[in-house]
Amino acid sequence: MVMTAEALAAARQVKLVIFDVDGVLTDGGIYIGPQGELFKAFNAKDGLGVSLWHKAGGKTAIITGRTSEQLACRAQELGISRVWQGQRDKRAAYRELKEAFGLADEEIAYIGDDLIDLPVMLQVGFTGAPADASPEVRRIASVVSGLPGGHGAVREVLEFLLKAQGKWEALLGLFAVQPADAAGLAQ
Amino acid sequence: MVMTAEALAAARQVKLVIFDVDGVLTDGGIYIGPQGELFKAFNAKDGLGVSLWHKAGGKTAIITGRTSEQLACRAQELGISRVWQGQRDKRAAYRELKEAFGLADEEIAYIGDDLIDLPVMLQVGFTGAPADASPEVRRIASVVSGLPGGHGAVREVLEFLLKAQGKWEALLGLFAVQPADAAGLAQ
Amino acid sequence: MVMTAEALAAARQVKLVIFDVDGVLTDGGIYIGPQGELFKAFNAKDGLGVSLWHKAGGKTAIITGRTSEQLACRAQELGISRVWQGQRDKRAAYRELKEAFGLADEEIAYIGDDLIDLPVMLQVGFTGAPADASPEVRRIASVVSGLPGGHGAVREVLEFLLKAQGKWEALLGLFAVQPADAAGLAQ
Amino acid sequence: MVMTAEALAAARQVKLVIFDVDGVLTDGGIYIGPQGELFKAFNAKDGLGVSLWHKAGGKTAIITGRTSEQLACRAQELGISRVWQGQRDKRAAYRELKEAFGLADEEIAYIGDDLIDLPVMLQVGFTGAPADASPEVRRIASVVSGLPGGHGAVREVLEFLLKAQGKWEALLGLFAVQPADAAGLAQ
Repeated sequence: MVMTAEALAAARQVKLVIFDVDGVLTDGGIYIGPQGELFKAFNAKDGLGVSLWHKAGGKTAIITGRTSEQLACRAQELGISRVWQGQRDKRAAYRELKEAFGLADEEIAYIGDDLIDLPVMLQVGFTGAPADASPEVRRIASVVSGLPGGHGAVREVLEFLLKAQGKWEALLGLFAVQPADAAGLAQ
Repeated sequence: MVMTAEALAAARQVKLVIFDVDGVLTDGGIYIGPQGELFKAFNAKDGLGVSLWHKAGGKTAIITGRTSEQLACRAQELGISRVWQGQRDKRAAYRELKEAFGLADEEIAYIGDDLIDLPVMLQVGFTGAPADASPEVRRIASVVSGLPGGHGAVREVLEFLLKAQGKWEALLGLFAVQPADAAGLAQ
Repeated sequence: MVMTAEALAAARQVKLVIFDVDGVLTDGGIYIGPQGELFKAFNAKDGLGVSLWHKAGGKTAIITGRTSEQLACRAQELGISRVWQGQRDKRAAYRELKEAFGLADEEIAYIGDDLIDLPVMLQVGFTGAPADASPEVRRIASVVSGLPGGHGAVREVLEFLLKAQGKWEALLGLFAVQPADAAGLAQ
Repeated sequence: MVMTAEALAAARQVKLVIFDVDGVLTDGGIYIGPQGELFKAFNAKDGLGVSLWHKAGGKTAIITGRTSEQLACRAQELGISRVWQGQRDKRAAYRELKEAFGLADEEIAYIGDDLIDLPVMLQVGFTGAPADASPEVRRIASVVSGLPGGHGAVREVLEFLLKAQGKWEALLGLFAVQPADAAGLAQ
């Protein structure tokens, strides 16, 4: 993963991570059946990453341009309660969301993969991008994952945040030492 | 992306882009359920590419050999109103389409990936091909994307056209400066 | 594609190509929904390859270990009328099929990817394997495609046969010169 | 595949293989439709690997954090009768399972890909991981497959066990010499 000292410093302040959906939480495929979108392709390792971020006290939200039942299902599974769907102007959704959480820009991270994510990415304190994000997004991202969207990019960025914040070792301990505490984590 | 000075010159004249479907707008997978084709695998980044091409005033159409509700759904989502399905002889469909739009061959681009696309590709002014197109198609294409079908090849070719026509910078500006203007773009 | 002079000589005699399904005509994925197999992932370029082989007068058949409506749908689409499903002992099915077609072993090719294909592959005159076939299958195959199952391996093997038999150029001509003759080809 | 002399010695004692599901028996994709999980992506070559392991007298079980009809279908197809679903604390399930089978830790192998698999992986005698397992899992695994989850990793690990136990050659013989004996193998 490409990263810098600036990225590490910025990562330490993050309290809320906002996810784009298509190409970030999914592989970017738009799978269309006879009556419209049939499914979305999420990832189990990303799911555990979100669970660990929650377990460490981190907050999450979703802002996406498309609208689907599929995303609502997955968001519920992952315990992401704040979901803004059908947001083509993501900056307006971001303003509402920032106010709802009562956080400053520097306390918010955004993981995006395409041009419509740029306006918010230029505003938040920390940004992440999958390996297959558009070049314009990769150019401005605090960190670029070595993995594509829907194949672990979200997990890698969340691990980076948790490590930067010194919370990763304690989380790992859950699995090796006290597995009972790991109960209730989604995948 | 493989390109030449000739490709750049040809790209400047393009007003209409015609897309093949399987292997171009999709990943080439034919996903068959118990009652026939279950879904098609389109791509979000390609979707935004089509939206940007429309926003810049470009026209679009589809000519495809297969027939499916899936394509009709996706075409509507993308705002592609001219869709010729079930066209095994694509040259006949092309003739009708050229007349309907009132354009010359040099003003039309075609993105295709296999032999049945060749007759039309040999006629239009500009052609694009995904990285995994058949060798015969790649050999004659004006530009060959570095990405396979259904994984951003269409986006890359459309960006090439927009850059050649000097329209890309203004479109990028929508996302960085005036995001409200980006509202209504499909993915 | 890995090939030898022996492979070329053997290819010239082939009149019938038998396909395995999972991992050959599909990507090897077993996509299970709540009520069993939901879909199979076939490929458009493979489809055109089968159509071209038929157009050149070649015969086809399928012998597969699994049983599904999905395969029946796809076989019909591709014009493959002889389909042996649920065949765990593929050699028995092969014997019946050979008799039904009235052909000798040397006139039959088999494309397979795993151990259960070996008994028939050791008997026919010509064999092909996808890039991701099991090592035992790749070791004995007349030709090994550079592409994995469900991503063009079948197309590549069929093109090899058509080129070896001197029929490829005439087929290509259909697309460049007389496209009307290409009508009716499946993908 | 990465392996050591210690892995070979440990492999010889294995009588039971326990599989994780998402990212091990599947490609790690979580495919969500409008009403929840739509399908899981299993693999035909893995399926034959499980069948061969059974044919050689090996036992199998599944412990997974998620719960789905899809897994129940696939497990039945593969003849895996012991399936523990919805197990977030996999160590508790492991204790029950070990008792049910009456085996020692050294006689049990576990194939896992993520942190929630670690507690059990630290306890059993032999462990395997797909190429795309989390780094923490790969670090402690007896063998790491060269293939990702859902694309043959399980098959490769099971072949390693069968070869270590000197059972592979006899199984191969089924396909080349006495194909009738191969009847009844799942894929």
